[in-house]
Order: sequence, then structure tokens, then C-alpha cells
Amino acid sequence: MKVSKYLDTEPIQELPGVVKREVINTEAGAPNFCMRVFEVEPGGRTPLHSHPWEHEVFVLSGQGVVRSEKGETQIERDSVIFVPPDERHRFVNNGNEILRFICVIPLVS
Amino acid sequence: MKVSKYLDTEPIQELPGVVKREVINTEAGAPNFCMRVFEVEPGGRTPLHSHPWEHEVFVLSGQGVVRSEKGETQIERDSVIFVPPDERHRFVNNGNEILRFICVIPLVS
Repeated sequence: MKVSKYLDTEPIQELPGVVKREVINTEAGAPNFCMRVFEVEPGGRTPLHSHPWEHEVFVLSGQGVVRSEKGETQIERDSVIFVPPDERHRFVNNGNEILRFICVIPLVS
Repeated sequence: MKVSKYLDTEPIQELPGVVKREVINTEAGAPNFCMRVFEVEPGGRTPLHSHPWEHEVFVLSGQGVVRSEKGETQIERDSVIFVPPDERHRFVNNGNEILRFICVIPLVS
């Protein structure tokens, strides 16, 4: 068993305005999926992109929108987002504080 | 893409004092793993048990301990816990408010 606080994990500057922490990954012994915590600065965004794996997301704090080709939906604390494999998506922080969310992905070889 | 608030998901009384919500599961289209949110009342606990799959846990609020055969560790908001397959574990709410945590498990057939 491994117990930590998420801020103990080294941050990675994923994109300008977007920091990622891999809080549970293969290094911790995870066999199937990886838990990451993202922090997006106000005005920050992830690119509109797609990939063959899913996202399972839980918003911890802040406000933003998740965009797909079908439109956008407001998200905030306690929002849950399932992004299926191959669906284009983007997260945007349109609020005044950090948008923090958990994003779980499968470990793909 | 499916966007919801976690409280929109129907609660399941998993145990006395323990409520579970399957916020992302096969019904939502999840192919590999399932995201659940647990709420444990003050004094509530999950049984000391083990199973062949792992847990990836993130604590949202409240205070408690996670116990294994090696001892116990205090957990609180922003704690991250990786429970490897087959390791005995128990979550206990030893605080005065609801202990809420995300727990992700693989979809096993």
C-alpha cells in the first residue's frame, strides 16, 4: 500500500498553464490504469485532441468547460466527465481560480 | 462524452454507514475501469478484506485511516492511496464529518 498527499508528487509542466502530477502510476505498482491530477490556470486550456483511450475525470475545484465536437458543458467541483476513446475533447479554465481535476487513463503498451 | 455531477448518480447502501455511487461504469461506456465515490459516516468502516484487484483512491473530504496488516495511516483531503491486488485493507472514518473518497477499480470479468 502506498499513501501520499497529491502535492508530494513532482509536478510536470504538461503545457503552458497546465501542470500534471502522476499520483499513481506504474512506478507505484499500478497494473491497469494511472491516476493523474491536473491544475489548469485561469485562461489555460488543453488542446482539442483525441486518442484511442478513454478519460475518467472528477473535478476537485475551480470552474471551466469541457468541449467536444458536439458543444461545450460547464464543469465545476464534483463534476464527473467520461470521455470515450477517440472522442475529441478539450478542457478550458474560464474561471478565476485554478481548475483542478483528477483524470484516470488506462495503461497502454 | 457524458458529463454529470456525482450526486446525480443513484446511491447504493454498500454497508451500514457506507454509501457508494458508481459515477462512471460500463453503463456509461467505460471499457477498462470503473470510478466510484464512497461516503463513510463518522464511525463507519469498510471490512478488512482483500481481492485480486487494485484500488486507486483519492480523498475528497473528511478524515480517517486506512489500515493494512502493516499498520494504519491517517488520511484526509488530497490523500492518495494505492492498494495493490491481494493486499488486505480497510477504510475507517475516525473524524466528525463524512469521509468522501474516489475509488477506481478495474473492470474484471
